[in-house]
Amino acid sequence: MGLYDYTIYSVIKRNARVYGDRVAWISGDESITHGEFREKVDRLACGLIGLGLKKGDRIGVLAQNCLEFIYLFGAAAKIGAIMLPINWRLKTEEIEYVISDGSPKVVFVGADYQDMLSRMISNFDFVEQYYAIGQAKGDLASFYDLMDNSMVCPELPVHSDDAYVIIHTAAVSGKPRGATLNHRSLVISNMQAIYYLSLTKDDCNLGMLPLFHLAGLTFSLNVMHAGGVNIILPKFDPDLALKHIEEDKVTIFGEFPPMLTTLLDRAQDNKRDISSLRVVTGLDHPETVKRFEEMTNATFWAMYGQSETSGFVSFSPYFERPGSAGMPSLMTEMEIVDDSGNVVETGKPGEIVVRGPLVFKGYWNLDKDNEYTFRDGWHHTGDMGRLDADGYLWYVGRKSEKELIKPGGENVYPAEVEKVILEHPVVEEVSVIGVQDQHWGEAIKAVCVLKRGETLKETEMIEFVAARIARYKKPKYVVFVSGLPKTEDGSIDRDKVKAEYGK
Amino acid sequence: MGLYDYTIYSVIKRNARVYGDRVAWISGDESITHGEFREKVDRLACGLIGLGLKKGDRIGVLAQNCLEFIYLFGAAAKIGAIMLPINWRLKTEEIEYVISDGSPKVVFVGADYQDMLSRMISNFDFVEQYYAIGQAKGDLASFYDLMDNSMVCPELPVHSDDAYVIIHTAAVSGKPRGATLNHRSLVISNMQAIYYLSLTKDDCNLGMLPLFHLAGLTFSLNVMHAGGVNIILPKFDPDLALKHIEEDKVTIFGEFPPMLTTLLDRAQDNKRDISSLRVVTGLDHPETVKRFEEMTNATFWAMYGQSETSGFVSFSPYFERPGSAGMPSLMTEMEIVDDSGNVVETGKPGEIVVRGPLVFKGYWNLDKDNEYTFRDGWHHTGDMGRLDADGYLWYVGRKSEKELIKPGGENVYPAEVEKVILEHPVVEEVSVIGVQDQHWGEAIKAVCVLKRGETLKETEMIEFVAARIARYKKPKYVVFVSGLPKTEDGSIDRDKVKAEYGK
Repeated sequence: MGLYDYTIYSVIKRNARVYGDRVAWISGDESITHGEFREKVDRLACGLIGLGLKKGDRIGVLAQNCLEFIYLFGAAAKIGAIMLPINWRLKTEEIEYVISDGSPKVVFVGADYQDMLSRMISNFDFVEQYYAIGQAKGDLASFYDLMDNSMVCPELPVHSDDAYVIIHTAAVSGKPRGATLNHRSLVISNMQAIYYLSLTKDDCNLGMLPLFHLAGLTFSLNVMHAGGVNIILPKFDPDLALKHIEEDKVTIFGEFPPMLTTLLDRAQDNKRDISSLRVVTGLDHPETVKRFEEMTNATFWAMYGQSETSGFVSFSPYFERPGSAGMPSLMTEMEIVDDSGNVVETGKPGEIVVRGPLVFKGYWNLDKDNEYTFRDGWHHTGDMGRLDADGYLWYVGRKSEKELIKPGGENVYPAEVEKVILEHPVVEEVSVIGVQDQHWGEAIKAVCVLKRGETLKETEMIEFVAARIARYKKPKYVVFVSGLPKTEDGSIDRDKVKAEYGK
Repeated sequence: MGLYDYTIYSVIKRNARVYGDRVAWISGDESITHGEFREKVDRLACGLIGLGLKKGDRIGVLAQNCLEFIYLFGAAAKIGAIMLPINWRLKTEEIEYVISDGSPKVVFVGADYQDMLSRMISNFDFVEQYYAIGQAKGDLASFYDLMDNSMVCPELPVHSDDAYVIIHTAAVSGKPRGATLNHRSLVISNMQAIYYLSLTKDDCNLGMLPLFHLAGLTFSLNVMHAGGVNIILPKFDPDLALKHIEEDKVTIFGEFPPMLTTLLDRAQDNKRDISSLRVVTGLDHPETVKRFEEMTNATFWAMYGQSETSGFVSFSPYFERPGSAGMPSLMTEMEIVDDSGNVVETGKPGEIVVRGPLVFKGYWNLDKDNEYTFRDGWHHTGDMGRLDADGYLWYVGRKSEKELIKPGGENVYPAEVEKVILEHPVVEEVSVIGVQDQHWGEAIKAVCVLKRGETLKETEMIEFVAARIARYKKPKYVVFVSGLPKTEDGSIDRDKVKAEYGK
């Protein structure tokens, strides 16, 4: 630790001092105070040092959310190791790729993934040791062996700008890329969220998002930093979630559809008390947000961010500017640029670029990608958006030549049209694609799934869109289908939609 | 500007974008929006570059608070120059020393100080140009000449860790020392205050504290960063202050005694509306704080900080733990150490040391002092304090062997005893000193001034202290006098008190 450093371990130490007797973590029946958390982290740090782990070494974790996962995050912060949390939703080959890319010296494996991992082990000659989290199959060593010590290990020279976690993000050119974050950007990300969401020691986060995603990780770190309670759920389970909300007086959670809708439905059906909720953030359908705010005294916050920005870089209560992603945050410089890097006029879409202390260190071992991503001194997010005259950010979609539709030379991002169509109350799902058009070169086609029992005319849908965004963005064709092709992770398979309906 | 930088100028740019049409600064009848502020700063930056100012050059300012002062802070941030605001309350020789120490290339002088400065100019061969703020005497150039341009100057490579302002602090070894702060520590200081005090674009700060003091500067920067309004007062003027509070709906200010008492008295006498106030921070008498909170819906916040920590590093509402300086803040690692640098037991007094991104860059041109101050990787504040079992910081006093009283080998800091005595309703002023004592080596003596018309017995005072802090800290002797000797700046002259009453 240097004079100017403040790491995630600094946060743990501070909490142990100022909130030592308060509960920090809840998992199932277990609850751990901030004071106990520091003790456990210190013991695990000793165990990891005993294994020969050094500053900069990676620690792989393939497990559902659990206390052990959190202890590892704490201990890694103390010794300067780098966490490599692995997305267990990926396909086997992708998991194998992520582990090879991060080349951890030690890997921790949850019970559900031990069989899968055992089939790849032969490819990982860099891994020196595997540990089981939970029940161990075969001859795996147990996580708790590492905590079975009473050594006091000295404080290590860990700096704010040392790498702390690698989060593999969606494959852009075929392979997932490891976004590498340091302590500084995460701590500042915490500070921003703590301010915007007014987090204090009295908050309680329901951790349903996976810790291998930055959203799940930062929500836990935010509330930990504020001195509050984090409830760790292995994964999303609506009944368990509602039980915690009611019994532990949960104040905050992050969500992605359809989590919130499911929770609201169940809460109504089973008369569950969700009145303790104060803040929910995420992306959701306007109707769901409205319903949520009507059922509670809570506020739904809109945000924009990505792993590469260490969390969120724009924030606003949803209904302050419905549909926007909020206002660029207090520690973020943001611009919208064209393909040549020139700032576009206010209101025009372009690529969202940011700079400031929230920007990540770079992609793991991808110097060429980093040079390109960081060109001109800005982080190029790869996301398209626009800033309106009042400074609110509107998310338009992923930047991708393939996903750009050009009717009459105009640029239309399918995601923007899809977002508007989804606001229509009878629409269940939609995919917007470009189709060849003799007159305009390319035309917009919307492939819609309506809610059960609903009907809609093609022209009504077209006018619905035209009334809400620039008219050149309205679909020329609308087809209603009974379902859309999906990828393995449940999202709409745009390539298959194009193949089926793109004629 | 690099990828990870976020400077004070970044804040100004962001505000111009997201709050462009909102008022940012008020001075007299003038009000300036965030958008106009950026324009003025940009023009002044061009003017300064035209003068030949380069990154790292110092800009001296000897003036009362005014808009020009603020424009200079903005322009310096843009071009990477270092502000050297000069305390006009100092004696002439001290002002001369501060200017020589900072050796600015250009100096801006308010009307009231032009005569004084003209008598020193011959010693400042490093100054290339002087400018008048306000009415110019003699042949001084006018500040506004520098803004009379319509150039667009490019963005300069200013980094978060570049020096930005030098604040000369009280003389420790005879000479004032220039605490040098960079953009990063000030921006993070803003973030902390914005969080704790829940500052938003709707806040309005009454800037009565001088901009040459860090408290005055950071309060303005905090509220500016949050997008709010800052009212600039040349200096403390209770009637003008109350007029602004009432008419501009002031929500926050920082104060030092007797500002708050004076304002409350006048508000009551003249039936002024102060109900817009939300937060006041400072140091004050418990009775004043109580009276203030009873008269308003506002909260008085206790804090601890110094120029060397870029502002405050502990915060709490006063009545959360009355008498304490609040809880170490979210970005601060704090310990209490003995003279050997060992952490003392919880509850014991020692020197307050801190580390983290809020620590200053160091004293200007004083490498030896910096080595000593930053020994063992901590900033040694020179202040004595203790942390209680719940993590609250209690300020004990300045560290100084001379000011330590040792009755029977115990360490007693006069400031702690003085603080308790000042809580007694009939006490006006007090100075606590050590006197020789045959039995205990040293004994505690309190030299008190009572309020007009009040009386008190020596034993009553001793018991009052004994009931509030450790009994060994109670005075053995109490004398009541009609007045205490003062230094030129109005504070009690402890050396003279010792000479007069130390027998």
